[in-house]
Amino acid sequence: MQAKSNKSHEQVELGFGTKSYNKNVRFLNKDGTVNVRRKGLRSYDNIDVYHWLITTSWTKLLIVILAFYVLVNTLFACIYFALGYEHFGGIEGFTGPDRFMDLFFFSAQTLTTVGYGHVYPNANHVSTVAAIESLCGLLGFALATGVIYGRFSRPKAALIYSENVLISPYKEGKGLMFRIANSKQNELIEIEASVVLSYTNPETNKREFNVLNLERNKINFLTLSWTIVHPIDEQSPMYNLTTEELVKRDAELIILIKAINDTYSQNVYSRMSYKASDFVDKAKFVPVKQDSDNDGHILINLSDIHKYTPVHN
Amino acid sequence: MQAKSNKSHEQVELGFGTKSYNKNVRFLNKDGTVNVRRKGLRSYDNIDVYHWLITTSWTKLLIVILAFYVLVNTLFACIYFALGYEHFGGIEGFTGPDRFMDLFFFSAQTLTTVGYGHVYPNANHVSTVAAIESLCGLLGFALATGVIYGRFSRPKAALIYSENVLISPYKEGKGLMFRIANSKQNELIEIEASVVLSYTNPETNKREFNVLNLERNKINFLTLSWTIVHPIDEQSPMYNLTTEELVKRDAELIILIKAINDTYSQNVYSRMSYKASDFVDKAKFVPVKQDSDNDGHILINLSDIHKYTPVHN
Amino acid sequence: MQAKSNKSHEQVELGFGTKSYNKNVRFLNKDGTVNVRRKGLRSYDNIDVYHWLITTSWTKLLIVILAFYVLVNTLFACIYFALGYEHFGGIEGFTGPDRFMDLFFFSAQTLTTVGYGHVYPNANHVSTVAAIESLCGLLGFALATGVIYGRFSRPKAALIYSENVLISPYKEGKGLMFRIANSKQNELIEIEASVVLSYTNPETNKREFNVLNLERNKINFLTLSWTIVHPIDEQSPMYNLTTEELVKRDAELIILIKAINDTYSQNVYSRMSYKASDFVDKAKFVPVKQDSDNDGHILINLSDIHKYTPVHN
Amino acid sequence: MQAKSNKSHEQVELGFGTKSYNKNVRFLNKDGTVNVRRKGLRSYDNIDVYHWLITTSWTKLLIVILAFYVLVNTLFACIYFALGYEHFGGIEGFTGPDRFMDLFFFSAQTLTTVGYGHVYPNANHVSTVAAIESLCGLLGFALATGVIYGRFSRPKAALIYSENVLISPYKEGKGLMFRIANSKQNELIEIEASVVLSYTNPETNKREFNVLNLERNKINFLTLSWTIVHPIDEQSPMYNLTTEELVKRDAELIILIKAINDTYSQNVYSRMSYKASDFVDKAKFVPVKQDSDNDGHILINLSDIHKYTPVHN
Repeated sequence: MQAKSNKSHEQVELGFGTKSYNKNVRFLNKDGTVNVRRKGLRSYDNIDVYHWLITTSWTKLLIVILAFYVLVNTLFACIYFALGYEHFGGIEGFTGPDRFMDLFFFSAQTLTTVGYGHVYPNANHVSTVAAIESLCGLLGFALATGVIYGRFSRPKAALIYSENVLISPYKEGKGLMFRIANSKQNELIEIEASVVLSYTNPETNKREFNVLNLERNKINFLTLSWTIVHPIDEQSPMYNLTTEELVKRDAELIILIKAINDTYSQNVYSRMSYKASDFVDKAKFVPVKQDSDNDGHILINLSDIHKYTPVHN
Repeated sequence: MQAKSNKSHEQVELGFGTKSYNKNVRFLNKDGTVNVRRKGLRSYDNIDVYHWLITTSWTKLLIVILAFYVLVNTLFACIYFALGYEHFGGIEGFTGPDRFMDLFFFSAQTLTTVGYGHVYPNANHVSTVAAIESLCGLLGFALATGVIYGRFSRPKAALIYSENVLISPYKEGKGLMFRIANSKQNELIEIEASVVLSYTNPETNKREFNVLNLERNKINFLTLSWTIVHPIDEQSPMYNLTTEELVKRDAELIILIKAINDTYSQNVYSRMSYKASDFVDKAKFVPVKQDSDNDGHILINLSDIHKYTPVHN
Repeated sequence: MQAKSNKSHEQVELGFGTKSYNKNVRFLNKDGTVNVRRKGLRSYDNIDVYHWLITTSWTKLLIVILAFYVLVNTLFACIYFALGYEHFGGIEGFTGPDRFMDLFFFSAQTLTTVGYGHVYPNANHVSTVAAIESLCGLLGFALATGVIYGRFSRPKAALIYSENVLISPYKEGKGLMFRIANSKQNELIEIEASVVLSYTNPETNKREFNVLNLERNKINFLTLSWTIVHPIDEQSPMYNLTTEELVKRDAELIILIKAINDTYSQNVYSRMSYKASDFVDKAKFVPVKQDSDNDGHILINLSDIHKYTPVHN
Repeated sequence: MQAKSNKSHEQVELGFGTKSYNKNVRFLNKDGTVNVRRKGLRSYDNIDVYHWLITTSWTKLLIVILAFYVLVNTLFACIYFALGYEHFGGIEGFTGPDRFMDLFFFSAQTLTTVGYGHVYPNANHVSTVAAIESLCGLLGFALATGVIYGRFSRPKAALIYSENVLISPYKEGKGLMFRIANSKQNELIEIEASVVLSYTNPETNKREFNVLNLERNKINFLTLSWTIVHPIDEQSPMYNLTTEELVKRDAELIILIKAINDTYSQNVYSRMSYKASDFVDKAKFVPVKQDSDNDGHILINLSDIHKYTPVHN
C-alpha cells in the first residue's frame, strides 16, 4: 500500500528532462539561474547583446562603456589623421603624436557633443566625418540611456533564503521548513511559492519531479520573514525517506517564488535550489525578533533568518 | 452556537504574524505604506538607490540632483586645479580662487556638454580628464532621464478615502461603510476591493485577520464615488461587537484595492487602514452630488466624500 | 411569466450609479472616454501634468513645448540682463534691445547645450546662472524624452466600430449586431468583448445596466472584421422591446473590449457606446470582402465595415 | 459512430473566418506573422510610424535615421542660405556652394548640439532659426532614445521550431510531434502551447479550426528542447486521415506559444504554422544530446533539433 501511495504523487514537468546526472550537477544554481548551457545553434542566433548589457554587473558595464568610448575615439582620430590635420583649425601640436592626440580629443569633444571649438573642422570632408561622429554620439548615448533605464526598471525580487532546510517537528509529525525574507526596502505583495522535490528514482534511474504540498502557498505581504512548511505526512514523497536516503538519491529541492513588486506593480520571480546536503534533520528555526518602538513602528531583525537550534526528542 | 459561527470566519494570512503590539502600533500607515522596518541585513543588501530616486518627493530629488551637480563639479575643478591652470586656454582669473572658479565653470560646461569653448583644455592630461568628465555627464544624464521617466510612468492609484468608517443602517440590519473616489483625471477600471478586519483575540492575545464579506467587491469604472459595504450579519466577525469592544481589541481595518489605470493599462494598487477610533456608529454618508450640464456632461462633486450625518433610530 | 423572466437579467455594477439623466446625456463618449467631470477636490489633487502630456494631441504638445522654450529663455535672458551684459564676452549689440536679444540667444544656446561660445559668461555670478540653466536644459530634455517615449509606448487599441448597431435576422429569431476591426498594422490577439445595455426602467425611473449574452465573446486574432452578436431571445433584456421603446427608455449600449497588442505584449482596452438612435431595425451587414492574391496573401477590404442593407421579411 | 465522434471536435474561432482559399495561401507565415493585408481605410488611420520604427530591421532604421539627418540639415542649410551667409560669423567659403556647405555643417553642429562655434549666428533672425533647430535636435534625439529603448525592451520569444512535424509511434498508437527550443541565453518560464489544425471540410468547402489535445500543454522552464505531442486517438480530428488526405484538405497546423521572459517578467508570444506538406509520416525525432561537464553544468546541443529518422514498422 505504501508503494501504491508513493506512485500517486503529483508529478510535474519542469522542463529539465528525466536524465540522471552525476552528483555534483544541480538543475538550478544557488542564485536561481538555470544551470544549463545551450550549444549548437548558429552563433548569431545565440547572441543577445541587450540581455548582456542589462544583466551584467555595473563594474563590467562601466568597463565596456569606457573601452568602447576609447575605441570609437581612436577610430575617428585615425580617420581624421588620415584625412589630414591641416584641415582642422586650432591644432597646436607640432609632432605627429601630438597632432594625433589633438584629433583624439577633438573626437571625444565631438562624440559627447561638448564641442569646445578651439579645434574645429574647416574642410568639407572632415566636417562630414565630424557630423557623422556627433550623430553616432547621440545614438550611442540614446542606447546608454535605454540600457541604464532598462537595468533600473528591470523587475527583481531580492529575496534572501535561509541557508538550510530543516526537518522540524510540525503538528503531530514532521515538516520540511525554510525561511524567506525581502532584503530590499520595497514591498512585495501577493507572494506565491511552489516547491518541487527532484530525486533519482533508484528503480528506473530517472529523475522524478514531485510537487510538495505546502501548509500555505500564498501570503499578501512579505513584510516579516515567511517560513514555508511542507508537512511530511503520508502524501509526501519524502515520507519514510531519511536524509541519508535523500543524499543517496541526489535530491534537489527546487523553489519557485512569484510576487508583485509594489513600487512598479510588476510581477517578479525568484528561484532557489537546495541540495540534500543542505538539509538539517531534527532542528528548528530560532524565531525572527519582532518588536515595536515608541513611535509605533514595527521593527524586525532579519539577521537571525539563518539561525536554528537542534531539537532533542 | 454563536461561538461556533464565530470560529468559522475565514482567516487570511496577510504576512504580518500574530504578535499583538501596544495600541499605538498599526500594520498599515494611513498612506498605505507598510509600517515595518527591516534591520539586521548587511547594509549593502538593504540599499536600493533607484527605489529611493523613484519614490522620494520631487523637492528632495531636485535638491539631491543639485547637490550632486555641485559636488561633481567641485571634484573635477579640484582635479583640474591640481593638474595646473596653465594647461587651459582662456583662463582669465589672476588669483588662485578666481582661477579655481574659472575651472569650476569649465567643469560645469563640460559635464553638461554645453562646451562654450572660451576656456578649453590644451594639454593631453587635462583633455583626458575633460573627456572622462563629459562621458560622466552623458551617463549621469542618461540616469536622470531614466529616473524622471520612471517616476512619471510608475503605476499610481491616487484614491481618496472617506475619513471615517461608518456603521450605518443597511437593509434590515447594519453595515460597515466607507467611500473611495479617484482624485485624478485618468480613469480607473476593473476596481477590486478586499477588506480585512484585524483584532487581538482576547482569549489568545494573538492578532486575528478576518476577511470581511462585501456587498460587492468589483466595479467596472471608478467614475463616481464607490461606497464599499460590509453587511454586519451573523457571518460577520464584527457581529455583536460594539465599537468600544473593537477599540479595546485594537481593531484595524485593512483595505486592499486593485485596479487598472486605463491610460497605461497598468495594474495599480492602493492600500489604506482605519483604526477602530476612526469608526463612527449610527451615522450615514451624505450622497455625493451628481448632475448633468447643458452639454450632456455628467458632473460630480467629490468635496462631500467625507460628509456624514447621524442616524437617530 | 414574462415579467418574472425580465427580473432575472444579470445586472452589472459599472460604477455609473443609478441616477437617470436627461436624454442628451451619455455615460461613454463615442471615443470611449468616460463622460464624467469630477470637481470639488483641492486643485492640486486634481492636476496630473504627465497624464495631460501623454494624452494630448501632438500639435498641442508641440505648442506647449515651444511656448515653454520661449518662456524659459526669456526668463533667463531677463536674469542675465539684470546681472549686466558687461559680464559676457562676445556681446555685439549696442542698444538695450539688441543686447537683450544677444542674451536671449545665449540662453537658448545654453539651455539646449549647443554652446557655440561666441557669447560666453566671464564673471562668476553669470557663470553660475548659466551652469544652472544648462542643468535645467538637461533635466527638461530628460522630461521630454520620457514624455515622447511614454506617448509612443502607451498601449492603444485603434479599433474601428461600425457606425450603426443592426437588429438582423439571426438563426430562427433576431440578433443585435455590430462590427469591429483593427485599423492599425499591428496584430491584436485574444480579443474579448463584453456588452452592457443600459436603460431607464420606466417603473423606478432608475438606470439599469444589463449584461448582454454574446454568441461568442472571445476570438484569437482580430485580423478580419469581427461581427459581435447578441441573440435577442427570451433571456435578453431587449426581448419584446421595440427600437422606439429603447429610444424612449434612453438606451445606451456600452461596449468594453480587451485585447493584447502583439507588438508589445500589452493589454489594451477599447470602449465605445451607441445610443438607441444608432440602432437600425431590419437590416443586415454587407459582408466584408476577403480574397487572396497571387502571392498567397489574404486581402481584406475594411472600407465596407459600416455598410448594411435592409432586410424585407 | 465515427462520423458522430468527428462532429464533436472542439472548434475554435481564431478570427480567420471560414472562407477556403487556394492552396498556396496560409493563415500564418513561417515567422509567425499573420498573412493578412488590411486595405480600404483612410490612409492616416493605417499608418503607425512607431510600430514601423520598432519592428523594422536595424539596417533599415539606420538608413532612415541617416537620410532624415541629411534631409533636415539640408533643409536648415537652405533656410540659413536664403537668410544670408553674411549674418554668420566664421564663414570661410568664398563661393556659393562652399558657403552652403559651411552652413550645412553649421546646421549639423546645431542639430546635434555639438556647437563648435567657429561658425555662429550673429543676427537675430538666423539666431532664431538656430534656436529652433537645436530644439528640434533635442526632440529628435528624445525620439531616437525612445525608439532604441523600445526596440530593445520589446518582448520577444526567440523560439526555434523543428522544420518538420512528425507522425511518430506514441504509446500504443501514433502521435503528431514537433519540437521547440529557446535560441537565446535568457530563460523562458511557464511556457504554454496551444495547437490548432485547420483544414477545408470537403463537404461544406469551409475552413474548420480544430483544437488538438496535447499530451502536456505547459512546462515550467524551456531549458532543454520540448517535444509537443498530440496523441492521434479517436478524439483527434486527424484520426483516420492520411497525410495525403491532409494535403488534399490544405491542412495548416497553427501553433500559439505563450511564455514569460524571465529577464523582464514580460509575457512573450510566439506563433508558427506548418502546412501539411511539412508533415513526415513514420518518422521519429533523434534525441537532443544532453550531458554534464566536470564543473557540474548541464550541456545541451540544439543543433539536432530538426533531425529525425524513419520508423519501420
